[in-house]
Amino acid sequence: MDLAEQGAGRGGAVRGRPRSESVERSIIEGVIGLLEDGVPLAEISIERVARTAGVGKATIYRRWSNREELFCDVMRAAEQVDLKLPGTSTRDDLIALLESIRRRGLANRTSSLAHNVLAQMKSSPKLWKAYDANVIEPRRRLTHEVLRRGQQNGEIRSDLDVELIGDLFAGPMLVRTVMRPDAELPDGLAEEIVDTVLEGLRPGKG
Amino acid sequence: MDLAEQGAGRGGAVRGRPRSESVERSIIEGVIGLLEDGVPLAEISIERVARTAGVGKATIYRRWSNREELFCDVMRAAEQVDLKLPGTSTRDDLIALLESIRRRGLANRTSSLAHNVLAQMKSSPKLWKAYDANVIEPRRRLTHEVLRRGQQNGEIRSDLDVELIGDLFAGPMLVRTVMRPDAELPDGLAEEIVDTVLEGLRPGKG
Repeated sequence: MDLAEQGAGRGGAVRGRPRSESVERSIIEGVIGLLEDGVPLAEISIERVARTAGVGKATIYRRWSNREELFCDVMRAAEQVDLKLPGTSTRDDLIALLESIRRRGLANRTSSLAHNVLAQMKSSPKLWKAYDANVIEPRRRLTHEVLRRGQQNGEIRSDLDVELIGDLFAGPMLVRTVMRPDAELPDGLAEEIVDTVLEGLRPGKG
Repeated sequence: MDLAEQGAGRGGAVRGRPRSESVERSIIEGVIGLLEDGVPLAEISIERVARTAGVGKATIYRRWSNREELFCDVMRAAEQVDLKLPGTSTRDDLIALLESIRRRGLANRTSSLAHNVLAQMKSSPKLWKAYDANVIEPRRRLTHEVLRRGQQNGEIRSDLDVELIGDLFAGPMLVRTVMRPDAELPDGLAEEIVDTVLEGLRPGKG
């Protein structure tokens, strides 16, 4: 699956017709309704989604090329994470990126729907691969773009690989959100991580 | 399970008798043999371990209070990770700690036994809790001790919580070993992470 397809899958190709967006929303809401009723992901076929939303299967396949892509958008809706980069500085963009990880972690703790769907996606290699390709990888690529821009601007050291730098910023937040479900995720954590990693841990810094 | 029990479980209470250590080793090797033969963890009871090692069940229970503790030692043996802190500086100790995470990650990729046992432990809440208590938590506590000492020595900024600092160092390595099985884990990665987090990412540092 390439990026163009992902864009189309998220409605990129059919946007502009308001009716189409509302159809899309009602399909996603239909899936969320099924999940809230306790129907396992594995039992939600495109056919069942079509029946629930009162549309034809072709209407669904025009928007998502397969179940996996549809569920990624369902997951996005359940997590309600909206990522917007302020673009004011590398620091501010990095904080926004880490804040989106924190919010996703909080959603996963407070919304049993988000938690449940994510757990089910994790246990299916095919669904997890789609989630990784549609949600995780694009965020990593965006982080690397932000860092490369920061290196060009002189805001970030340019002697290090952006892959490594990306992990230095995202790693601490991911460890708390994904690996330690009981770790604290206080307001301001994104800012604290970004500023500390920028300034370093030697005394007299920061 | 408290720490004293864990110590006793690892043979702390019975050490000093060489014969006892060799019994312990043969029990662990017996379990590893079963796993190498493809026997699932769930089918390995204390009774079966006793039969395999040619000892009585009481001999096993003198060393490990339950299956979970025994499997944690099996996991340690499979991972072959030996953590020794050099004690020469906070930086060197942190590198040793991160290097042990890297080696565990490498073992999990190259040893199908370690990978398989870890996957089975993850899918059992009881086993995972034991692994967390016996392997992960002690390493986190040790990291916090090293950092507290570093703050007292003036090697590390003392205005930040050691929990957060610990995640800044361990997070990037854990993300690569645990969450992204295809990420690179090159020699020298532990050193690179520790030095970069110590010096910070602003230009002109490091």
